Amino acid sequence: MLIDKILRQALEEDLGRGDITTEAITPSSLPVTADLISKSSGILAGVEIAQRVFHLIDPDIRFQPFFDDGGQIEQGQVIASIAGNARSILAGERVALNFLQRLSGIATATHTAVEAAEPFGTTITDTRKTTPGLRVLEKYAVRMGGGKNHRFGLDDAVLIKDNHIEVAGGITTAIDLARAHVGHMVKVEVEVETLSQVKEALAAGADVIMLDNMEPQAMKEAVAVIADQAIVEASGGITPAQVATVAAAGVDVVSLGWLTHSAPPLDISLDIKMD
Amino acid sequence: MLIDKILRQALEEDLGRGDITTEAITPSSLPVTADLISKSSGILAGVEIAQRVFHLIDPDIRFQPFFDDGGQIEQGQVIASIAGNARSILAGERVALNFLQRLSGIATATHTAVEAAEPFGTTITDTRKTTPGLRVLEKYAVRMGGGKNHRFGLDDAVLIKDNHIEVAGGITTAIDLARAHVGHMVKVEVEVETLSQVKEALAAGADVIMLDNMEPQAMKEAVAVIADQAIVEASGGITPAQVATVAAAGVDVVSLGWLTHSAPPLDISLDIKMD
Amino acid sequence: MLIDKILRQALEEDLGRGDITTEAITPSSLPVTADLISKSSGILAGVEIAQRVFHLIDPDIRFQPFFDDGGQIEQGQVIASIAGNARSILAGERVALNFLQRLSGIATATHTAVEAAEPFGTTITDTRKTTPGLRVLEKYAVRMGGGKNHRFGLDDAVLIKDNHIEVAGGITTAIDLARAHVGHMVKVEVEVETLSQVKEALAAGADVIMLDNMEPQAMKEAVAVIADQAIVEASGGITPAQVATVAAAGVDVVSLGWLTHSAPPLDISLDIKMD
Amino acid sequence: MLIDKILRQALEEDLGRGDITTEAITPSSLPVTADLISKSSGILAGVEIAQRVFHLIDPDIRFQPFFDDGGQIEQGQVIASIAGNARSILAGERVALNFLQRLSGIATATHTAVEAAEPFGTTITDTRKTTPGLRVLEKYAVRMGGGKNHRFGLDDAVLIKDNHIEVAGGITTAIDLARAHVGHMVKVEVEVETLSQVKEALAAGADVIMLDNMEPQAMKEAVAVIADQAIVEASGGITPAQVATVAAAGVDVVSLGWLTHSAPPLDISLDIKMD
Amino acid sequence: MLIDKILRQALEEDLGRGDITTEAITPSSLPVTADLISKSSGILAGVEIAQRVFHLIDPDIRFQPFFDDGGQIEQGQVIASIAGNARSILAGERVALNFLQRLSGIATATHTAVEAAEPFGTTITDTRKTTPGLRVLEKYAVRMGGGKNHRFGLDDAVLIKDNHIEVAGGITTAIDLARAHVGHMVKVEVEVETLSQVKEALAAGADVIMLDNMEPQAMKEAVAVIADQAIVEASGGITPAQVATVAAAGVDVVSLGWLTHSAPPLDISLDIKMD
Amino acid sequence: MLIDKILRQALEEDLGRGDITTEAITPSSLPVTADLISKSSGILAGVEIAQRVFHLIDPDIRFQPFFDDGGQIEQGQVIASIAGNARSILAGERVALNFLQRLSGIATATHTAVEAAEPFGTTITDTRKTTPGLRVLEKYAVRMGGGKNHRFGLDDAVLIKDNHIEVAGGITTAIDLARAHVGHMVKVEVEVETLSQVKEALAAGADVIMLDNMEPQAMKEAVAVIADQAIVEASGGITPAQVATVAAAGVDVVSLGWLTHSAPPLDISLDIKMD
Repeated sequence: MLIDKILRQALEEDLGRGDITTEAITPSSLPVTADLISKSSGILAGVEIAQRVFHLIDPDIRFQPFFDDGGQIEQGQVIASIAGNARSILAGERVALNFLQRLSGIATATHTAVEAAEPFGTTITDTRKTTPGLRVLEKYAVRMGGGKNHRFGLDDAVLIKDNHIEVAGGITTAIDLARAHVGHMVKVEVEVETLSQVKEALAAGADVIMLDNMEPQAMKEAVAVIADQAIVEASGGITPAQVATVAAAGVDVVSLGWLTHSAPPLDISLDIKMD
Repeated sequence: MLIDKILRQALEEDLGRGDITTEAITPSSLPVTADLISKSSGILAGVEIAQRVFHLIDPDIRFQPFFDDGGQIEQGQVIASIAGNARSILAGERVALNFLQRLSGIATATHTAVEAAEPFGTTITDTRKTTPGLRVLEKYAVRMGGGKNHRFGLDDAVLIKDNHIEVAGGITTAIDLARAHVGHMVKVEVEVETLSQVKEALAAGADVIMLDNMEPQAMKEAVAVIADQAIVEASGGITPAQVATVAAAGVDVVSLGWLTHSAPPLDISLDIKMD
Repeated sequence: MLIDKILRQALEEDLGRGDITTEAITPSSLPVTADLISKSSGILAGVEIAQRVFHLIDPDIRFQPFFDDGGQIEQGQVIASIAGNARSILAGERVALNFLQRLSGIATATHTAVEAAEPFGTTITDTRKTTPGLRVLEKYAVRMGGGKNHRFGLDDAVLIKDNHIEVAGGITTAIDLARAHVGHMVKVEVEVETLSQVKEALAAGADVIMLDNMEPQAMKEAVAVIADQAIVEASGGITPAQVATVAAAGVDVVSLGWLTHSAPPLDISLDIKMD
Repeated sequence: MLIDKILRQALEEDLGRGDITTEAITPSSLPVTADLISKSSGILAGVEIAQRVFHLIDPDIRFQPFFDDGGQIEQGQVIASIAGNARSILAGERVALNFLQRLSGIATATHTAVEAAEPFGTTITDTRKTTPGLRVLEKYAVRMGGGKNHRFGLDDAVLIKDNHIEVAGGITTAIDLARAHVGHMVKVEVEVETLSQVKEALAAGADVIMLDNMEPQAMKEAVAVIADQAIVEASGGITPAQVATVAAAGVDVVSLGWLTHSAPPLDISLDIKMD
Repeated sequence: MLIDKILRQALEEDLGRGDITTEAITPSSLPVTADLISKSSGILAGVEIAQRVFHLIDPDIRFQPFFDDGGQIEQGQVIASIAGNARSILAGERVALNFLQRLSGIATATHTAVEAAEPFGTTITDTRKTTPGLRVLEKYAVRMGGGKNHRFGLDDAVLIKDNHIEVAGGITTAIDLARAHVGHMVKVEVEVETLSQVKEALAAGADVIMLDNMEPQAMKEAVAVIADQAIVEASGGITPAQVATVAAAGVDVVSLGWLTHSAPPLDISLDIKMD
Repeated sequence: MLIDKILRQALEEDLGRGDITTEAITPSSLPVTADLISKSSGILAGVEIAQRVFHLIDPDIRFQPFFDDGGQIEQGQVIASIAGNARSILAGERVALNFLQRLSGIATATHTAVEAAEPFGTTITDTRKTTPGLRVLEKYAVRMGGGKNHRFGLDDAVLIKDNHIEVAGGITTAIDLARAHVGHMVKVEVEVETLSQVKEALAAGADVIMLDNMEPQAMKEAVAVIADQAIVEASGGITPAQVATVAAAGVDVVSLGWLTHSAPPLDISLDIKMD
């Protein structure tokens, strides 16, 4: 239901008071077929979303996907075939493509990062640096690329960042306050920048310790200190190309904002064929 | 009002049932100050948006911008200063930054393209390849970067694309149908790929002719044929780096989907200072 | 989707917490048939809207229209036949009729104006003087009556009115500012009251010149001056009865707020027949 | 809150993605004053609505009304004076006028009907034949014109109409079913067409009897039969011009759909003055 | 439609960004069956609501109820059988139960009160002390338990309470002001605490007189004074156990806030069976 | 913002098309004062909510609380004093009280349970058996009573219940599937009914083990087996009166649906005083 709301708003945004080009040019009940074609290779994410976009416009459109989300596609392959009223297909084309291209771009970038991390047994996750309004979809795309999800919002786990430590007056105080506030189902993570902060976080009982913008050597030392008493996460401006180096430092998790704010879209087009 | 709705949804998405970290760690009425600091150089867009995000959370927050949207900022400069309740500032930090970074990234990329096009008197515009839900904001960022806006949706101008021509059975028919449907305030644009299509579009009375994925030499010939009888737009996978070449072909307008789907975000951070 | 939202709100407005009369009196699953009958003659608009109203209440209702929107109906003719659950039909009756009567009234009035303008090759359009909340529907009704649509809102074309000219300090300045702001897909219209203003608007490059509240003789002179260098529109308190006189002055377009704020509704009733 | 929702939707409908004319032509912070001027005489309704429209756009606008709703205004009088940002006033002008003109038109028509009914001690009410989406506002305008309100929806009283009688199989059955269903705070009204139906409704204990489309003489007989044992309402295609004749028949209430579906708008304009 | 909105919000509240347990554990298309089983005896209300909850999640779920709302169920009986996708059933379980248990609890409590009042011919009604957001559903449950509904809101009848009398300056003034304001379809009730107030209310023409927190003897005297010239309602902290005593005093109606703010839920569980 | 939405809907539900009693009886600008008075003793929750309800109706109302949420109040004490427009106060009275009474009832019941658990160092939590639409508020009330919150929804932690185990085919499989799906910030809880299930859950690495409907002796054995390797939670139809017995068994957490579905409201009234 949440996703339908996002899709409806995207359609309202694009359609406005109506698709005047299509209304003018297309007979009201002309059946056509169309192909969604990939113009590059990558990991697919958003096929069901594209299908749902067309369904919201016109429940009579038949949408036949040839790949599942998470699947590898090559340049030139037909992702899905669409059949139905020409007006409906034309009205939904751009919105469906905008979602499909963006999500597949994220899945493709995630996949690259996951492959780089795999030899080290390291998990790849996203962050909250997602596109406003599209977080559930973008985090889904990360999963389709083989990654896992960090927090979905400010409400589902505690993450004590530098600004919180500044306000609380210290890591130990911050962790204690967090424990006293939240219930038994909530994990507590702390962002640290130095080895001494790592030690304080560990002593205060953090469930997860995030090494923020640390050099690989410092990360190795932190991992050694933590010694499996907490989960270790590396974060801070990491690109997919840097994942292998970071993972090699022995962290459990690498989180990348890059996946959702900088991954280029996958190029996909929709071609209508008259019968 | 439309923008408030977008911002509220972004806040609801991030806050969910509440910012449990901040509620736990921060006293309910602790005043702090914070700076928005640019970590790279570029063109600013979204300062008013960031201000509005904080205002929606807490109308008592004071937000003092030091640059206007459209202004050039350098690495390390303070963009704005924020003062108010610590909880409110922490709750809005990520959402404000997500908007500000994305919009400034678009403005910066647009500015690069505009500078490349300027010697040729060519206009830079966006497309409808925007982030679902954020079109009005992203098109605003394009204007802040010095570009102009193409259509905002399917409803505010006619743009006859390849799929429409396929369905209509030809360019002339499509233009005639469009003219018969729309009122006297609506322009009609046609997307063409060949010189013969250019001629047909011109003969049929198109207001604007879009040269889709044409080579520079072909564009030059098209421009010569059209001879100011219609506005000429170049489009199709153009990056900012290619703008100068395309503009040199003599077109009036270059439109780039790249500005809104691939521009990297500008790196900006929020630092809280205890008094 | 936009229209469904309007219809749902109208149903919520009328149903409130439920139709207590029908719930009390009607068995929960009594099948009946009903006819929509015209009690006067005119041009139909809103049959699909009425159908959709009943569909939103109860998807199992069968609605068989005998006329399309835009069709001429005579007094006493059955517009559509409805079959289904008595409760559903009774619950939707008033809302369906309120839409159908209003829209058909607009289409009928538009048709009268269009017929009066036809001998002069003049186009009839609406204005933004529509009922708040119903603009897309009322502009649709104008098209069903043979008219065309002026702007749908403040966002899809530039129309510089007397208050804008006052604020800008003159017609030429206003047009120049508009051109510098909007993209290449947007037309610029100016409202003028005198022949000297006509000349200034023409010199400044207006796409459309609106003659506001001018006498027929003045309009003739304006048309002569403009000489096909811009589209000429007449506006200002014009009733359908005055259309022929105005059109005879040679203008391209006559726009009437009357169509949407003063057209009387077409009288239509719904009669239930027990099987 | 309900009214704010209606006003916001009307503004969204008109503003769409923004008022491009005003943004182009008007400096962002130019103070102006403007007058709302009546171009005809009548009863005012909607001044607070107009004020609220401008407030929703810009809380800093100062709106000084010179008449209250329900007041008599003459041609040429200034209804209210507005001062504030030029962009804000221009953006709200049309929406504010569309509400104010329509509501004042309804109040003016109601006032005419009320004056015609007054000598007979008869009450004037509206019906549910209101504009979809605007019922609370239009019923408010009826009160401002001196009328009273009939049902606001299908949920706040029982009104058994011809179709209900057809479905229930008779007036007595329908009234009995209604009484058994609703609580002790709800009145029951029945629509009748003949004297024998009047008698049946009376015997079955109707609180209110509506004489539908009856001739004056038949109404007089019905009034005599009912003899103050129920409230008597006359309805069915009655225009303000017919009110006196109907009221003279001795009915307690005359209800007119005409007030909300056919009353012409009052002509009002907004004139901006540069300081 | 109103109810769908309530159900959707309840689902959004519970599902948030998705049911992560079920997504992890359950194959995406595993068919299962499940039973809704009563763990105590009572009157059922909300079966259609539960059915609708599952339908909103997944229209392909088959829901077979074995009892209608208003029916008596015994401990251990199967209320309904559900078949469909395991994910859909698990996702809707808690929300469906939360509604069904609460509404059945209200119906059961109402039934007890109705049985106590029956020998005296007294009607049982609810009040406005309902759960915020659930009023239409809770008032429906009261009807399913055999009770009737008092006002649905502040808009569908006049109820003059102690605070209104204080503000108006007296009962007679308050009733006169109410009559002058409302139309002929609206009843006027007054809340009184003493016999002299009863007499004033009667003289002022109240349709309904509410005896607030009166002792049985005082109520008997009030009933004698009123003598069928107005409907008599008893109210004020009455529990189902006190209904018989109050009803025996001869009042027409007993209203209980207890039904909706204190009735314990009926215990119902959902058990999945693998095929 | 989420809470404002809940409050607005509650106000819309109660006000409908307007408070006709108050509009009729009260002058439009009559200033009054009113007291919120407790008619029983307990723990307060919802004072800020009540304040916000009045603020949403009329920002000019002054609301002076004398107790904070979480405070102990005695019968007869004045909770808060309200001053402002009589119409605004009367319009918000019922909604404000409905929230305040319900939330204070929950806080009071929670406080009782917390006191019973305290000697054993046991934590009291709520469940997802909350009132549809009011979960965030009811969970807030639990915190005000000294309890902690369990999951807010299906999305913020994994809780494997009997139906999930049935579908997955076993506890170990279910836990493994959950771990493979969720990220490193999410805890996994399993509901068990027997000691052998406890052992399986422990071996499979559950973070939290919920003992469902177990006898005290069985719980003691389970606690001994688990031996601090996982958090132990007791649940299943527990009332506040049973908390001490359950806590004495040595569990870490006791969760009670009773707190939110059966706690009786605290009796609070609003009395207006004319100045």
